[in-house]
Amino acid sequence: MTTIDDLPIRDDLRGQTPYGAPQLDVAVRLNTNEHAFAVPQPVIEEMRKRLDAELADLNRYPDRDAVGLRTDLASYLGHGLGFESVWAANGSNEVQQQLLQAFGGPGRTALGFGPSYSMHPLLAAGTGTRWIGALRDPDFGLRADAAVAEIHRHDPDLVFLCSPNNPTGTALDPAVIDAVLGAARGMVLVDEAYFEYARTGTRSAIELLPGHPRLVVTRTMSKAFGFAGGRLGYFAADPAVVDAVQLVRLPYHLSALTQAAARAAVSQSAALLATVEQIKVQRDRIVGTLRGRGVAVADSDANFVLFRTGDDQKAAWQAFLDRGVLIRDVGLAGWLRVTAGTESETTAFLNAAEEILL
Amino acid sequence: MTTIDDLPIRDDLRGQTPYGAPQLDVAVRLNTNEHAFAVPQPVIEEMRKRLDAELADLNRYPDRDAVGLRTDLASYLGHGLGFESVWAANGSNEVQQQLLQAFGGPGRTALGFGPSYSMHPLLAAGTGTRWIGALRDPDFGLRADAAVAEIHRHDPDLVFLCSPNNPTGTALDPAVIDAVLGAARGMVLVDEAYFEYARTGTRSAIELLPGHPRLVVTRTMSKAFGFAGGRLGYFAADPAVVDAVQLVRLPYHLSALTQAAARAAVSQSAALLATVEQIKVQRDRIVGTLRGRGVAVADSDANFVLFRTGDDQKAAWQAFLDRGVLIRDVGLAGWLRVTAGTESETTAFLNAAEEILL
Repeated sequence: MTTIDDLPIRDDLRGQTPYGAPQLDVAVRLNTNEHAFAVPQPVIEEMRKRLDAELADLNRYPDRDAVGLRTDLASYLGHGLGFESVWAANGSNEVQQQLLQAFGGPGRTALGFGPSYSMHPLLAAGTGTRWIGALRDPDFGLRADAAVAEIHRHDPDLVFLCSPNNPTGTALDPAVIDAVLGAARGMVLVDEAYFEYARTGTRSAIELLPGHPRLVVTRTMSKAFGFAGGRLGYFAADPAVVDAVQLVRLPYHLSALTQAAARAAVSQSAALLATVEQIKVQRDRIVGTLRGRGVAVADSDANFVLFRTGDDQKAAWQAFLDRGVLIRDVGLAGWLRVTAGTESETTAFLNAAEEILL
Repeated sequence: MTTIDDLPIRDDLRGQTPYGAPQLDVAVRLNTNEHAFAVPQPVIEEMRKRLDAELADLNRYPDRDAVGLRTDLASYLGHGLGFESVWAANGSNEVQQQLLQAFGGPGRTALGFGPSYSMHPLLAAGTGTRWIGALRDPDFGLRADAAVAEIHRHDPDLVFLCSPNNPTGTALDPAVIDAVLGAARGMVLVDEAYFEYARTGTRSAIELLPGHPRLVVTRTMSKAFGFAGGRLGYFAADPAVVDAVQLVRLPYHLSALTQAAARAAVSQSAALLATVEQIKVQRDRIVGTLRGRGVAVADSDANFVLFRTGDDQKAAWQAFLDRGVLIRDVGLAGWLRVTAGTESETTAFLNAAEEILL
């Protein structure tokens, strides 16, 4: 039998395994930061209607520029943005891959501050961009002076920030982003996948877009919009950045069905986002309950919580799974990440935590 | 105003324009080789049913490995293939991009024989793979000895073949593919996007898969399946090749809606492919009519025809457009490409050709 090792794959891929959390059939799945609530019926009706309208014409290619969808997303973001400042693709992974293809690639570098979203370095590798892994502070924060020092040291072509940061959960102070923009020669990406879950008063990097043409703020519909299965990521930036990614995007990358379903979801954003507050309540309940029992927990502006397990997080992960609760080992020694679920899912997690951690 | 030139984009992208045919609102659109017939009603019903079943669960990520869809596609292809030999993505462009990421990339080369599908070199560029553009024979054919000589000369990491070849239309003799497989050290991709339209007796490179683990045959549902708007490309290869692309694919790259709609289409392949014969009749009618009037035409196994215009193909393209018929200038001096449409669309094209070419 032929194996990968018999094939002429790239040397830097040899011995690697595919990215992805185990997709296990467990009662309580709190491992991939999905939104806990199913799509509400009125949104389903709107999606059905708009999908139906596309089916007879599927023999034709979709709108290559997805202008309608980008217009809707710009309107959702507000801040006076128009479609020419917004770009969309199949998940924020594809959006970020396109940005790396346009501004990174062979001979170029991208700098990030770990622990952060583990796809960032993989996307860099997949586009031939050299990844420079700097570190956040030991408390998982990121200070402006520390970030600026790393940028001066490495002079990267792209800087990746993540706010709220995955897997730690805390949003960045806009002053840090501002300092990074001032220090960096290259593009600055702020991954705001979890922004809709942020605590009251948290400010989006979108506010910094005017006057900063090298700033890109990426978002996703996979989380608060409850659209993980629909695959839609997007970014807001100067229109010139949108022009740039159009040089590397695959033609017709967004299907007519994706565009239709995503437009239906955005048109019903109030109904979809209505459950975000419930998730935040459960998120704060996890933080409060664990801290009340003396467990170390990172501040969270997301729909997940990073908490301390003691040294052997692998054993703790298995102990949760043995109790029917699937959470995430993000490869951070002594810590695990749990998604805030429905009230009953969260109770199941906290009951298991009571036995395992305390 | 900021422009692309003010941004730190890659040097090799400066001055480029995005790939893509003009999307013009013209009565007769025969420029992108779409299947001329709308999706039949029974197929629409099946798609509707399967899409509906996904909507409530869109808050959950899709099956990352798309095993159901790959199983269906393997069954459609036949030849005893199972899902482990098949991989799918959002169009054959993404499939080919993944193959280049796994087997090409910085420091590696890909060889193709032009004129051929113009996305092949662009996909190579987008993945940092150096493209080597060899040429087909002056009659647009490709002889085994000529192909082997180019492979010996350049020793590429990947060889791209296209059969039936876009934009010229002619399928390759399997003996050419066999010779290329014997000469090449690296991967050999055969792009069979138009295979379902091939003339009777044409053999697929899939027949060559046993014993050839470096052979990859890519297909698409955009053409004969009438699923261009749904975006689904796939390949058949040794299971080790599928393992390799899983190291570079974006996680959850195929939406739950794409998987559902594509599975509906494959389950109704007989109904969808029923109109392929009608397209072939119109294709042969174009070839026969133009040749009957003394116009040079390449043999076609596809749903399009490449024909001679005289030296100024740009003026001829405009003359067709002025008559309400949008066809394709593929950048080949003295030639244009027209998609075989419905009988009335084909008549509109031939009537215009009568005025313009004869």
